[in-house]
Amino acid sequence: MKQVVTFGEIMMRLSPPLNYRFAQTQSLEITYGGGDANVGASLAGFGVPAAHVTCFPANDLGRAAAQQFRALGVNMDATIYQGDRLGLYFLEVGAGMRPSKVVYDRANSAFANLDPAAFNWDEILKNAGWLHWTGITPAISASTAEATRQAIAAARRLGITVSADVNYRRNLWQYGQTAQSVMSELVEGCDVVVCSENDAEDLFGIKPQPGTDSKFVSVAQQVMARFPQIKQVVTTRRKTHSASHNGLKGIYYDGQQFLETVTYDINPIVDRIGGGDAFMAGFIYGSLAYDNPQQALTFGVAASALKHTVHGDVNLVTVAEVEEIMKGNTSGRLLR
Amino acid sequence: MKQVVTFGEIMMRLSPPLNYRFAQTQSLEITYGGGDANVGASLAGFGVPAAHVTCFPANDLGRAAAQQFRALGVNMDATIYQGDRLGLYFLEVGAGMRPSKVVYDRANSAFANLDPAAFNWDEILKNAGWLHWTGITPAISASTAEATRQAIAAARRLGITVSADVNYRRNLWQYGQTAQSVMSELVEGCDVVVCSENDAEDLFGIKPQPGTDSKFVSVAQQVMARFPQIKQVVTTRRKTHSASHNGLKGIYYDGQQFLETVTYDINPIVDRIGGGDAFMAGFIYGSLAYDNPQQALTFGVAASALKHTVHGDVNLVTVAEVEEIMKGNTSGRLLR
Amino acid sequence: MKQVVTFGEIMMRLSPPLNYRFAQTQSLEITYGGGDANVGASLAGFGVPAAHVTCFPANDLGRAAAQQFRALGVNMDATIYQGDRLGLYFLEVGAGMRPSKVVYDRANSAFANLDPAAFNWDEILKNAGWLHWTGITPAISASTAEATRQAIAAARRLGITVSADVNYRRNLWQYGQTAQSVMSELVEGCDVVVCSENDAEDLFGIKPQPGTDSKFVSVAQQVMARFPQIKQVVTTRRKTHSASHNGLKGIYYDGQQFLETVTYDINPIVDRIGGGDAFMAGFIYGSLAYDNPQQALTFGVAASALKHTVHGDVNLVTVAEVEEIMKGNTSGRLLR
Amino acid sequence: MKQVVTFGEIMMRLSPPLNYRFAQTQSLEITYGGGDANVGASLAGFGVPAAHVTCFPANDLGRAAAQQFRALGVNMDATIYQGDRLGLYFLEVGAGMRPSKVVYDRANSAFANLDPAAFNWDEILKNAGWLHWTGITPAISASTAEATRQAIAAARRLGITVSADVNYRRNLWQYGQTAQSVMSELVEGCDVVVCSENDAEDLFGIKPQPGTDSKFVSVAQQVMARFPQIKQVVTTRRKTHSASHNGLKGIYYDGQQFLETVTYDINPIVDRIGGGDAFMAGFIYGSLAYDNPQQALTFGVAASALKHTVHGDVNLVTVAEVEEIMKGNTSGRLLR
Amino acid sequence: MKQVVTFGEIMMRLSPPLNYRFAQTQSLEITYGGGDANVGASLAGFGVPAAHVTCFPANDLGRAAAQQFRALGVNMDATIYQGDRLGLYFLEVGAGMRPSKVVYDRANSAFANLDPAAFNWDEILKNAGWLHWTGITPAISASTAEATRQAIAAARRLGITVSADVNYRRNLWQYGQTAQSVMSELVEGCDVVVCSENDAEDLFGIKPQPGTDSKFVSVAQQVMARFPQIKQVVTTRRKTHSASHNGLKGIYYDGQQFLETVTYDINPIVDRIGGGDAFMAGFIYGSLAYDNPQQALTFGVAASALKHTVHGDVNLVTVAEVEEIMKGNTSGRLLR
Amino acid sequence: MKQVVTFGEIMMRLSPPLNYRFAQTQSLEITYGGGDANVGASLAGFGVPAAHVTCFPANDLGRAAAQQFRALGVNMDATIYQGDRLGLYFLEVGAGMRPSKVVYDRANSAFANLDPAAFNWDEILKNAGWLHWTGITPAISASTAEATRQAIAAARRLGITVSADVNYRRNLWQYGQTAQSVMSELVEGCDVVVCSENDAEDLFGIKPQPGTDSKFVSVAQQVMARFPQIKQVVTTRRKTHSASHNGLKGIYYDGQQFLETVTYDINPIVDRIGGGDAFMAGFIYGSLAYDNPQQALTFGVAASALKHTVHGDVNLVTVAEVEEIMKGNTSGRLLR
Repeated sequence: MKQVVTFGEIMMRLSPPLNYRFAQTQSLEITYGGGDANVGASLAGFGVPAAHVTCFPANDLGRAAAQQFRALGVNMDATIYQGDRLGLYFLEVGAGMRPSKVVYDRANSAFANLDPAAFNWDEILKNAGWLHWTGITPAISASTAEATRQAIAAARRLGITVSADVNYRRNLWQYGQTAQSVMSELVEGCDVVVCSENDAEDLFGIKPQPGTDSKFVSVAQQVMARFPQIKQVVTTRRKTHSASHNGLKGIYYDGQQFLETVTYDINPIVDRIGGGDAFMAGFIYGSLAYDNPQQALTFGVAASALKHTVHGDVNLVTVAEVEEIMKGNTSGRLLR
Repeated sequence: MKQVVTFGEIMMRLSPPLNYRFAQTQSLEITYGGGDANVGASLAGFGVPAAHVTCFPANDLGRAAAQQFRALGVNMDATIYQGDRLGLYFLEVGAGMRPSKVVYDRANSAFANLDPAAFNWDEILKNAGWLHWTGITPAISASTAEATRQAIAAARRLGITVSADVNYRRNLWQYGQTAQSVMSELVEGCDVVVCSENDAEDLFGIKPQPGTDSKFVSVAQQVMARFPQIKQVVTTRRKTHSASHNGLKGIYYDGQQFLETVTYDINPIVDRIGGGDAFMAGFIYGSLAYDNPQQALTFGVAASALKHTVHGDVNLVTVAEVEEIMKGNTSGRLLR
Repeated sequence: MKQVVTFGEIMMRLSPPLNYRFAQTQSLEITYGGGDANVGASLAGFGVPAAHVTCFPANDLGRAAAQQFRALGVNMDATIYQGDRLGLYFLEVGAGMRPSKVVYDRANSAFANLDPAAFNWDEILKNAGWLHWTGITPAISASTAEATRQAIAAARRLGITVSADVNYRRNLWQYGQTAQSVMSELVEGCDVVVCSENDAEDLFGIKPQPGTDSKFVSVAQQVMARFPQIKQVVTTRRKTHSASHNGLKGIYYDGQQFLETVTYDINPIVDRIGGGDAFMAGFIYGSLAYDNPQQALTFGVAASALKHTVHGDVNLVTVAEVEEIMKGNTSGRLLR
Repeated sequence: MKQVVTFGEIMMRLSPPLNYRFAQTQSLEITYGGGDANVGASLAGFGVPAAHVTCFPANDLGRAAAQQFRALGVNMDATIYQGDRLGLYFLEVGAGMRPSKVVYDRANSAFANLDPAAFNWDEILKNAGWLHWTGITPAISASTAEATRQAIAAARRLGITVSADVNYRRNLWQYGQTAQSVMSELVEGCDVVVCSENDAEDLFGIKPQPGTDSKFVSVAQQVMARFPQIKQVVTTRRKTHSASHNGLKGIYYDGQQFLETVTYDINPIVDRIGGGDAFMAGFIYGSLAYDNPQQALTFGVAASALKHTVHGDVNLVTVAEVEEIMKGNTSGRLLR
Repeated sequence: MKQVVTFGEIMMRLSPPLNYRFAQTQSLEITYGGGDANVGASLAGFGVPAAHVTCFPANDLGRAAAQQFRALGVNMDATIYQGDRLGLYFLEVGAGMRPSKVVYDRANSAFANLDPAAFNWDEILKNAGWLHWTGITPAISASTAEATRQAIAAARRLGITVSADVNYRRNLWQYGQTAQSVMSELVEGCDVVVCSENDAEDLFGIKPQPGTDSKFVSVAQQVMARFPQIKQVVTTRRKTHSASHNGLKGIYYDGQQFLETVTYDINPIVDRIGGGDAFMAGFIYGSLAYDNPQQALTFGVAASALKHTVHGDVNLVTVAEVEEIMKGNTSGRLLR
Repeated sequence: MKQVVTFGEIMMRLSPPLNYRFAQTQSLEITYGGGDANVGASLAGFGVPAAHVTCFPANDLGRAAAQQFRALGVNMDATIYQGDRLGLYFLEVGAGMRPSKVVYDRANSAFANLDPAAFNWDEILKNAGWLHWTGITPAISASTAEATRQAIAAARRLGITVSADVNYRRNLWQYGQTAQSVMSELVEGCDVVVCSENDAEDLFGIKPQPGTDSKFVSVAQQVMARFPQIKQVVTTRRKTHSASHNGLKGIYYDGQQFLETVTYDINPIVDRIGGGDAFMAGFIYGSLAYDNPQQALTFGVAASALKHTVHGDVNLVTVAEVEEIMKGNTSGRLLR
């Protein structure tokens, strides 16, 4: 199987233990994650060769972050060590009707200030069959947008499949270019996108046609018309009963067929962060491993549902575990 | 906004981690709380100037307790340091059908043995607009009852609103006077009381009139007739599905209108202790901040519901967080 | 009350904290347990004199295991210290649709290699009124099977009630004798057995008669016909909604009447391990303490339901706590 | 070997982790200990049959304390469950020049309020060869002094050796009788006493004769003259370099010979509490196991030195470990 | 006693537990500290009214930092909430020959970007008798230097004593002005300075006169000649045997007399951070409480020595504890 | 730089936290280590390409162990997943005069039962310049000895330097062949050996010649005469003052010159395990990086000394950190 390459920032995540509030903790638990790197690590766990490309400060914190992803089986050889600080985010885990809460502290990170010229994409992608990125990366700075642009261009040049989770984050995009213009250019080079109706409206001004049966299909059709390289539009539907209890299903459109999965009931939620990344990793795995998109989609959602039971940003589950869920074995019966 | 002053004992709370039983733990987590002080701390978190009046032993444990409430923004300047020991309670947290369990070790505490003459209530209340106390305080000893009596008298003299959570605890009241006689005298000086039907019967011998539509209204009417100073009677209705899952709503009668709130579904419960104190703090805040009792009542119950998701006796939430719940945003959706 | 004696292996159990996966933990929490010893410890907690018979290596780990059961009030005086290693099992606790997972590391334990001649059963059982064993013990090795055979023989000789949880574990039984032949001989000496339909088929080739109303009754009748010493067949019915949520009831047949209990809803599950042992301990207690089997059965299931809220293999609950559940007080209301 | 019986209070000890101060901890580690019970537990660890006699409240905390000593192999069958609360002490562990600090909270404990008539000493001591008590016990209350008196009387009646660590604690002795009068009566019945020069002066007004070579011998001679039953006076000499570094040796006089040991250098100190109890347990063991007092004394001091490397009040070491120290193997070389 | 006001940044400190390296930890312990704020908190612990002036981001982390200092008794009312992020530093604690290591992440903190106009120094200092600042504050940014300038000017205007720990940090001072020019201006307004020979050379180009008996006196004389407002120059001498073992003494010159203290041997070191701040706090306390500089100096060094036994940046000790050290009671003997 | 390849077992290490004894802990901290793998991981930390060859069971524990070494930068691609269980060892950390204590539980591990034919050494060693093994590996089983034999043969064939830490462990060597015969054959193929006088006597019957100046040189000369391939014999001299305080130096003989280092004073010891492996890794690094053996030897001992300050089996230090020690900077002065 060819390598899947991901590109993006990895941050240190700092959380009070259990459901403690920021104001009452004397310690913070550390994990590391990033929207794209989580996809790579999850794929490595599924046995897919995975490499992640990023930039860390040349200090103990940057090295610790790299170590963590290397442990998970992700090839980190293309990491650049340069710049001042590791991006951080603080996560307070909610419960019931109290939401989880993120305080970002990622400005001026080594990744935000990366030098696009430091990455030799033709070399980096030489063994790759798939490139994945998220809309967070170009939202950080002009240089991260430029590096994304070059990565996509190289992938197209090399005939590599490109996927993106467009993932619009209003609080980013502070560097003077609009999400709309930057993302339109980048999405042009993509074969597969995760894109919800909200994303489509925020990023591309695309709204469902009035009177259509399925708003998602209507939006996906317009996205595919606007960006003809795109062959598949997918997303998840989340029903947020509470911070501890969600429902989740996946939906898909490829120009011809609309697919959806059953809704998985997730209760209790151990860790909701990285749920979307787990979906994308699952969908990529499914696309590579199965010969029909329904199975790929179901694998993606089943993987994401399982992710909610795993602590940390990364989905530490195996193909066998996801396939049990796909078969409907969601009872959690003790395995001896 | 004028200061809210609370008076009562603060105990060290010692709990095994997680859901461990007393018999199996090698450590105890410490927090500090008390029915009245929890109200003050919660109000401080809402931005209301709050002061708490209490008595601690002049040792490291008493000072640590004071520190904790000072951290939360409660003015502790009127604390008396005198006496032998800090009151303690040991809490074992249950789960599902196993109840949480409290072992009290509060006898002969510095607070129980306080000298009523040590408190200069006219001075203490000079910036206050509201005095709150609970039925636990006069239940502890003759001297704490006397101090409560003097505090209420001073408040009346100074034209300060007085509220009480009458909170009948059968296991206290060991010092030779009856709850009935002591509480009747104290409640006479109150404007607002938290009083359930059970409390009314236990403390005042008041039962609902047969054949009335609402037992609560019938009881509240009799309470208000007996104690004409009282203008509002409030309480909560708790549906205890399990130690991990409760429903909660608030009810209110003011002589003219009966109000109630929606029932909030609380699942899972992180920490049930202090739920009633959070309600009272919320109701006081709501009474000061809104111009109608329905909003005050809803704020109180929403605050209490949120409290159940917060570890410790004290409700560490903000006005904005409670108002989200009031608006119906109980989905716990992740805040980035 | 006469002593209940149990016989079997005690293992060290090593679990990541909370719901962490094996791959992400830096520490393991230790408890100790074993199917038969858990019954003994639970009975000791109910005030029944209990003794456990086992074999530990003469090292610090074996001594620590003994200490733990001695703490719980189990007489460990008949322990043999001999052999190489303590049996271990690693437990990863699941959540929701992710199952808990056990990795056994018990081969070549001191218990597996015990010398049957080291146990003087007539001496060991001299104060006993009841002997309990599980199908795990004879599944481990020829020598553990032989020791079980001798224990049962002695019990029969001394007129002691014998019970067994037949508990067929396919992964054990590696030593060259079949479960079918060994267990048939051992079960012959039993008065009471825990035996599900699956166990009956796997161990004795007994299937429900076609067309019977109750498969369990049909199977139990055949079991009792095959092994005439058996007077009661019991088991539990578990509905596994998820790793965090189960339903549980008990069923019973004694040749004349079929009994069942209400279904207890268990949510959330704190620790599912030892649930069956807690049932058996409860049923033994109930058989000794009450004069009717319905109460014994209900006590057993209520005890087992409560066990699911207690961390560790052993059911650390009192008779009073179980009796509250029996009375229907499953609301988990705070006890002050 | 005959049983050694100890009598006295067991308290819950609550300590911040590591060297944290009371003001900065959010949790407390729990162990249980008491001057006499520590001796019993240490002896049990040496393989000597040991029983401890005490009184606990009939609550979860009292039962947990009993469990802990039962785990260590101490027979707790004579425990009385009665009274209101478990005695507590809070320990802050120092470092270097910062002393460790104890805050006692033991007033009105179940033990302090015990009923002397509850103990049937003839029954309790029926298998005993030795009774040990400390000066803390009669210092607590008139009833604990009376129980001590009765225990000693029974021991004398039954021909059992009696030892005491006279251990004068100025802060106790609040109940209206003087240490001098009570202790003189009790010490009359002892065969062996731990008594330093300070203790002798505080309790018996005995000062070294001017001009004597050894103050200890001079004092011991006077003590033995005053209390003719006493055959051996022992104590330790501690050189407190810092909270982390002490030197320790033992001294002994028996009317004929003065003995002393080498000084053991203890660095770092893991836990200094219970060092004296470990010495006494070691001296009792040595007196029972060896035929000369020099070895007994050395065993006592070596055991005490090792205790300083063990967390908690109780000396969790074996005879073999102590004997290594006695042989001079103090290098702490790794044992594989 | 008049208030001591301190001004400077408070950072969150994040440390692996114990002596773990950054690369191997899964959690970080949080405390908060800053060179100036540590002085204020220490003084509050000595009973001196203390207020700290700083700027925090208006997020949960900023509020938690404020809470922590409020708990310690420091008046935080003048805090400005504004800006983007809380300054952080990561601390890895060494042992023996392995040094402790700090990774700073304080660039672009709320404090660094503060608006000098936000502080009304005449109002802030209205109850003050002493203003203390450190050389770290003007090293951060032009605006923090400007705020320091205004604070000193106001203090001079109001006749308040001003002290500074000049504390030259080469890695700061990145904003385009030289330490030499900025610090010379600021030190002009000071009455008391902590200034080592190295600081004097780095900041003021002052070197000891060749051939002088005491380099420190020579340097101090030149400093006092250059800045005539300065009346006392003090500093500590640290002998770094290892990361776990230091020696420490204090030295002093006031134009007339040179004073020094004994050398305190500090072994083991629990936490070395904040040792200098503890010295300064102690010297300020001593200057206010005693009538001779020798006692002030000794109090300062004794306080600093004790600080090394306390976890965190802040010296959580009392006047009584420091005075014991001053009296020579450095044996760390257990206090019951 | 060419790859260094190591071969041997990796075990899970389970230790009570801090200095707790096995009998008192409720949790165990996990790390992973092995005499040879520790050398590889240490070299990876020095920037040397390192690969380790081993055999793990195909379960979660085996995968977690591999992950840990992959995180440290060791290439684990040649790992075989086969067999039943992961080798374990339990470590109790001593203090002062109480020794640390290891309980091994490694019998029948996947590694012990490995199939020598599973390793294609020519392929594994194709990029290697150095092969390192320890005497523990052939001591485990006939098959591990055979695999070692084949590895050495391949290395010789490929002209790769071979080193061994002969490390005689009396408790291993249970499989029917003698250490003497097996090791003699294996050592024949080595260029560099770590071998103390004791090892030489135990393994090769070599004793120092009477009357020689240096016993080590005498032994080394005989070893080199017996095994002419050996060019360097090195070892360390450890002075064990206590479990917390050691001295360490290195010695070396190469047929011509005898070299030794200064003695490093190690106090306190954080973790002594892996000290010898750290020495060997340092000596290999030094041999590759420096052009004289004195520097290599000093680097080895300095690295080992630093290891004693690092938790776990593996020496998590950098070349720069070791070189500071080599320069004499052992003061542990704080690095900002």
